[in-house]
Amino acid sequence: MKLISILGSTGSVGRNTLRVVEALGGEFGVAALGAGANWELLAEQIARHRPRLVSVNDEECADKLRRELRARALAAPAIGVGGEGLSEVATCDGAEIVIGAVVGALGLLPTYRALEAGRRVALANKEALVIAGEIMTRAAARSGAELLPVDSEHNALHQCLRGERHGEVRRLILTASGGPFRTWSAEAIASATPAEALNHPTWRMGDKITIDSATLMNKGLEVIEARWLFDRAADEIDILVHPQSIVHSMVEMVDGSLIAQLGVADMRHAIQYALTYPDRRAGDVAPLDLTALGKLEFFAPDTERFPCVTLAYDALRAGGTMPAVLNAANEVAVAAFLDGRIQFGDIPRLIRAACAAHGPGPVTGLDAVLAADAWARDFTGRQISAPPPGASS
Amino acid sequence: MKLISILGSTGSVGRNTLRVVEALGGEFGVAALGAGANWELLAEQIARHRPRLVSVNDEECADKLRRELRARALAAPAIGVGGEGLSEVATCDGAEIVIGAVVGALGLLPTYRALEAGRRVALANKEALVIAGEIMTRAAARSGAELLPVDSEHNALHQCLRGERHGEVRRLILTASGGPFRTWSAEAIASATPAEALNHPTWRMGDKITIDSATLMNKGLEVIEARWLFDRAADEIDILVHPQSIVHSMVEMVDGSLIAQLGVADMRHAIQYALTYPDRRAGDVAPLDLTALGKLEFFAPDTERFPCVTLAYDALRAGGTMPAVLNAANEVAVAAFLDGRIQFGDIPRLIRAACAAHGPGPVTGLDAVLAADAWARDFTGRQISAPPPGASS
Repeated sequence: MKLISILGSTGSVGRNTLRVVEALGGEFGVAALGAGANWELLAEQIARHRPRLVSVNDEECADKLRRELRARALAAPAIGVGGEGLSEVATCDGAEIVIGAVVGALGLLPTYRALEAGRRVALANKEALVIAGEIMTRAAARSGAELLPVDSEHNALHQCLRGERHGEVRRLILTASGGPFRTWSAEAIASATPAEALNHPTWRMGDKITIDSATLMNKGLEVIEARWLFDRAADEIDILVHPQSIVHSMVEMVDGSLIAQLGVADMRHAIQYALTYPDRRAGDVAPLDLTALGKLEFFAPDTERFPCVTLAYDALRAGGTMPAVLNAANEVAVAAFLDGRIQFGDIPRLIRAACAAHGPGPVTGLDAVLAADAWARDFTGRQISAPPPGASS
Repeated sequence: MKLISILGSTGSVGRNTLRVVEALGGEFGVAALGAGANWELLAEQIARHRPRLVSVNDEECADKLRRELRARALAAPAIGVGGEGLSEVATCDGAEIVIGAVVGALGLLPTYRALEAGRRVALANKEALVIAGEIMTRAAARSGAELLPVDSEHNALHQCLRGERHGEVRRLILTASGGPFRTWSAEAIASATPAEALNHPTWRMGDKITIDSATLMNKGLEVIEARWLFDRAADEIDILVHPQSIVHSMVEMVDGSLIAQLGVADMRHAIQYALTYPDRRAGDVAPLDLTALGKLEFFAPDTERFPCVTLAYDALRAGGTMPAVLNAANEVAVAAFLDGRIQFGDIPRLIRAACAAHGPGPVTGLDAVLAADAWARDFTGRQISAPPPGASS
């Protein structure tokens, strides 16, 4: 039995990882679970999977968890708290695979620790690569850790690249559903409501990533991730709008051949692949019935109506701490949009302003990217409180 | 420089192979060329590629070729004739790769000789695997010869299977354009004319294979080829109608993932892949622009309107010499249809009659399959000359 640790066990990726572990029936066991504030669900997960170590946000959550476990007459595992607790989960003895599914900057250090420790990291935390890709891939190279993507697009690329050589790949093609505003005019997009932006056509995900899908920033961030996961220049990574989200991504080889990975929109497929790689297992995911689909369509992305794509490419080309600024400004802007404080069209405007005001420095360590992240959050927050003349909010 | 021999250099695959060799500029050279009666084109090919050995159908062709070469003041290569000449081309000293592109039974023995000699065989001759797959793959296993498919569908499968394991493949999915009668009624198909049947929607090919595309027998024969190329049972090979012919084929893995190969409809891609494998080279083939295509569609094949699909699966399951009978009855029926001697709807009827009348024997050697082939040609020919009561011809 292979043991796994999950950073973010009560989130969507964490819960689906545990479903995959159950479906694989005994091949994988759970060493450690890192949660946040959801101690009720964590108690359920402990009852079912018996980890020897867990972590929660703080001592208050830890106390509640202990009481709940006593009430259920369950032996309590070791309980860590905060960032240190997560790092203990990430490096828990005996765990060969770490699922990196903590959202945001909080996930950076534990992910780094897992890579340092030479664990296979099945990565769902975008920030780890968007803002600290250089640091993460360097740590993996030093320790020999494997970094396997759990995003469906990057997981698809990983599958397409099996048996192919780095020098024989012409470009990676990330597919994008195009989001809910794919066919909207620029004017309509600029004043779209949160409810409209949250109405994603093909995937059910959290609010933040769903807004990123509506701006296409999600695809821009994925371009930056792909740069680090697959060691490719910005010019070697393209985006193709594919509204059906069936072709999860493709690779174009130097001989003109395209290799594509297709499947149903179910994140358990990518999770299972990252767990069992290089093996594949018959799992619980339904096979794809192409005859039931009718058709697959492909369109070039429209960077006029979706300027976030260009902002992301520009940040990747600027390099250094610029992607951290792009990411942080986007997070602040998206939160403000969801709160009704800015309009949809303000999101790219705010990101552009932050990137324009930032002189990117080298990525000397996690501190450097976290400082750029903090600067961009502060800068963008102030832009929102005091909008410049002519802004629409 | 790697040297190649081409069995069938003046046909469509042969000519395209020479274009690929030229596009690859000096990486490959031509050791030997096996042609048929087209000595004029062969003389051109000799002038351009300077093989040291060629072969033609008979002494008359050889004389004409010698005169032509003298007239052009070209040094004549060694010139073989007939089946023996082809076998000499197939085993020519120094040639590492043999392109098997002689159509029909004439290509069997030279292909076998090339495999016996341990050469890589880039195979375009369907019969070699349809009627003698067991013999060919056994010869390749004994000598360690590589058998690489040049058919776009099987070449696509070969690409999809790179880096995958045999036991982790659930099924192979051969795509089919559906041919010109994809949307026709059974009644309209039954009385289609040769001109209608030759109007293939996506590929330009020879007449015989174009009719096979219209009956879907081409896909049935490809199922039998796939069985031998990839060591799969009939139940593990499916057909999917895909009118755009852009997805050349796919593989479904046990975890539900589909890996597909896509490209433009240009046989030079598969030829080049078979020459350069395991490397890929930037060649002359245009890349695919998915955004220019609009859409890709997929449908289940309709075995009611296209009964040749079922006939092929039945012959594969019956095994032994039955696929040879299927193939020979089909060839005779297609030729009779092109000559206006039978109706389109008679093609499956004649094949079914031949298979029903044949008790399949074991494939003990090329003699056994050639005897079954001859029997089926004779039987089907007699059926056509003396149609049973109620037949439509």
